[in-house]
Amino acid sequence: MLSDVLLVSAPGKVILHGEHAVVHGKVALAVALNLRTFLQLQPHSSGKVSLNLPNIGIKRAWDVARLQLLDMSFLEQGDPTSPILEKLEKLKEVADFPEDCTDHERLAVLAFLYLYLCICRKQRWRAEDLELINKWAFQGEKVIHGNPSGVDNAVSTWGGALRYQQGKISSLKRPPALKILLINTKVPRSTKALVLNVRNRLLKFPKIVAPLLTSINAISLECERVLEEMATAVPAPEHYLALECYRRHGHKSPASGRPNGNRLSLLLQELIDMNQHHLNALGVGHTSLDQLCQVTMAHGLHSKLTGAGGGGCGITLLRPDLTGPEVEAVKQALTGCGFDCWETSIGAPGVSVHTAASLDAPVWQALDGLCAGQWASSS
Amino acid sequence: MLSDVLLVSAPGKVILHGEHAVVHGKVALAVALNLRTFLQLQPHSSGKVSLNLPNIGIKRAWDVARLQLLDMSFLEQGDPTSPILEKLEKLKEVADFPEDCTDHERLAVLAFLYLYLCICRKQRWRAEDLELINKWAFQGEKVIHGNPSGVDNAVSTWGGALRYQQGKISSLKRPPALKILLINTKVPRSTKALVLNVRNRLLKFPKIVAPLLTSINAISLECERVLEEMATAVPAPEHYLALECYRRHGHKSPASGRPNGNRLSLLLQELIDMNQHHLNALGVGHTSLDQLCQVTMAHGLHSKLTGAGGGGCGITLLRPDLTGPEVEAVKQALTGCGFDCWETSIGAPGVSVHTAASLDAPVWQALDGLCAGQWASSS
Repeated sequence: MLSDVLLVSAPGKVILHGEHAVVHGKVALAVALNLRTFLQLQPHSSGKVSLNLPNIGIKRAWDVARLQLLDMSFLEQGDPTSPILEKLEKLKEVADFPEDCTDHERLAVLAFLYLYLCICRKQRWRAEDLELINKWAFQGEKVIHGNPSGVDNAVSTWGGALRYQQGKISSLKRPPALKILLINTKVPRSTKALVLNVRNRLLKFPKIVAPLLTSINAISLECERVLEEMATAVPAPEHYLALECYRRHGHKSPASGRPNGNRLSLLLQELIDMNQHHLNALGVGHTSLDQLCQVTMAHGLHSKLTGAGGGGCGITLLRPDLTGPEVEAVKQALTGCGFDCWETSIGAPGVSVHTAASLDAPVWQALDGLCAGQWASSS
Repeated sequence: MLSDVLLVSAPGKVILHGEHAVVHGKVALAVALNLRTFLQLQPHSSGKVSLNLPNIGIKRAWDVARLQLLDMSFLEQGDPTSPILEKLEKLKEVADFPEDCTDHERLAVLAFLYLYLCICRKQRWRAEDLELINKWAFQGEKVIHGNPSGVDNAVSTWGGALRYQQGKISSLKRPPALKILLINTKVPRSTKALVLNVRNRLLKFPKIVAPLLTSINAISLECERVLEEMATAVPAPEHYLALECYRRHGHKSPASGRPNGNRLSLLLQELIDMNQHHLNALGVGHTSLDQLCQVTMAHGLHSKLTGAGGGGCGITLLRPDLTGPEVEAVKQALTGCGFDCWETSIGAPGVSVHTAASLDAPVWQALDGLCAGQWASSS
């Protein structure tokens, strides 16, 4: 069983609406991005399994033969969502930590070993398994962020789109797979400082900022409603015909006779614009983000910052009526500003098992080139 | 008495905060601008008094001798704020309208004759006289705008700064005379269409837009509070010393030890920024206004649209710590964008009587050049 190649991936995520407001009890929408972290599992010819997490500087190896000799039946004992402390104790023996190993490394390695051994036993996960993966991922988040909301690991586990408010997370039913650009302005910022700035502004101007947060909350809820309407709106063939017709005649937003799918895309654009202005009013904008919005607007596309703001990343909605050359033109304009730019889609599937044949060639080549025959984590 | 030269002026106005929100019952702040419309009153050598309103194409003349022969005592009868219908009837005889005279022209000429004859009788106005002037100005507004709020005529009559909400107008006590730039983007727009757009957006996204209007209302109230605090804050000499020190060392916004007057200016800047973002979120922004804001921000100055938006005019706050060359630089940058730009101040006096000697040379020259010996209206 351990000799099979196993490929798994999990999506990245962006906040669609509600960043910053979420800190003050408002709704946030997080969506899985089809920019995925891939994990390739394959035994060494040396008979060792190596863990290589280049981003956090971990490189460890274990004898596969020794792992196979161990009694792993304890992993199947009890409810998979029950506390796993006892299992962890047994796994620590397997991990064989050196004396100088930090807690940070211990946790990452334990998470790896646990998931590795479970993944090797299963090709398809039950809801309980996903819960467990999510909990482990949350532990990883805690190590890195200190006080994570739990949204990031949840959206990477379940994919799609999640609504988060005051610790409660729920999935949107059938979120549409919308195309977006994810743009990195490469302007560094401190999330902690930006969150503090918003809090200070709320304290300084409570009667101005509190209704602004209420408005952002309403944007998140309206976006959720539109995404769910999109999922149920089966586009009629004339939808695409009509869109094709708009393109040919250069009409970007016809005043009447607009098909439903396009009407919903235009609604999403309005929500994006309003929220971007709101985030500016909260003081988390940046000239690089203004530039990003202007450049995409010059191509008729609507953008907002995503996450902390003050630089960082932005997202641009790619309406379904856009042609390939139109998308290429805006990407070129953005990279011309010095930004990094990825064309991807939201509402992506959560953590998944792959066969090599099902992967796109570039992903496969990247995995193959990175560290063939090893565990590889690439983002 | 009619042989004396009489010079009067009234200020222009800008909305400081609350445009659009005011249509939905929120507070607006209007301030008198020290960009004034001058009126020069001087008898013809021909013995005629001519009315020349070049902006609205009116040119009429009356014999001064004939006017002097008329019994004008009716103008003093009754309460000056009482209905003036009876007086108007008598004035119509004086005006001697031709058959083809439009209602528009009739009203303008009647307003002129009434004010002309009253102004000639008085050099200083009582509160009741100002009420009357304001009412006449409001009639003029009605002719031009259809359904005016009454703010424009009120602020031009009383000057200073006014708070307006749902038909109620009140004056701010001692508003400070803050320097601003008034910038005309020269992008034409329809106020009516923009007001309708905001109404439609409110109907489309009530839960998003209503709190936004609440936030704008709070900005107007906070601005009112800051302006009143500015009026009572007598700047200490060290204030100016400190500002001079910041200038020399290139510190635009020192983190601590900031003098009170500067602290209040910085507050006003924050309110300007937030409202500009809010107006963008209402959909009444324009790329020309974005450019205006960016150009002034590049000089460390904060701007917002004023009035209807969608182009039109913007205002830029000129902090008291700015030097002449700094102001000149930003003006040059703005005119370089093709904008018209006036350096002026807000909180200007209302309608005023002048002596020629009290006027600045450029104003005097403009009046003299426009139509010496005639009634002149120039803005």
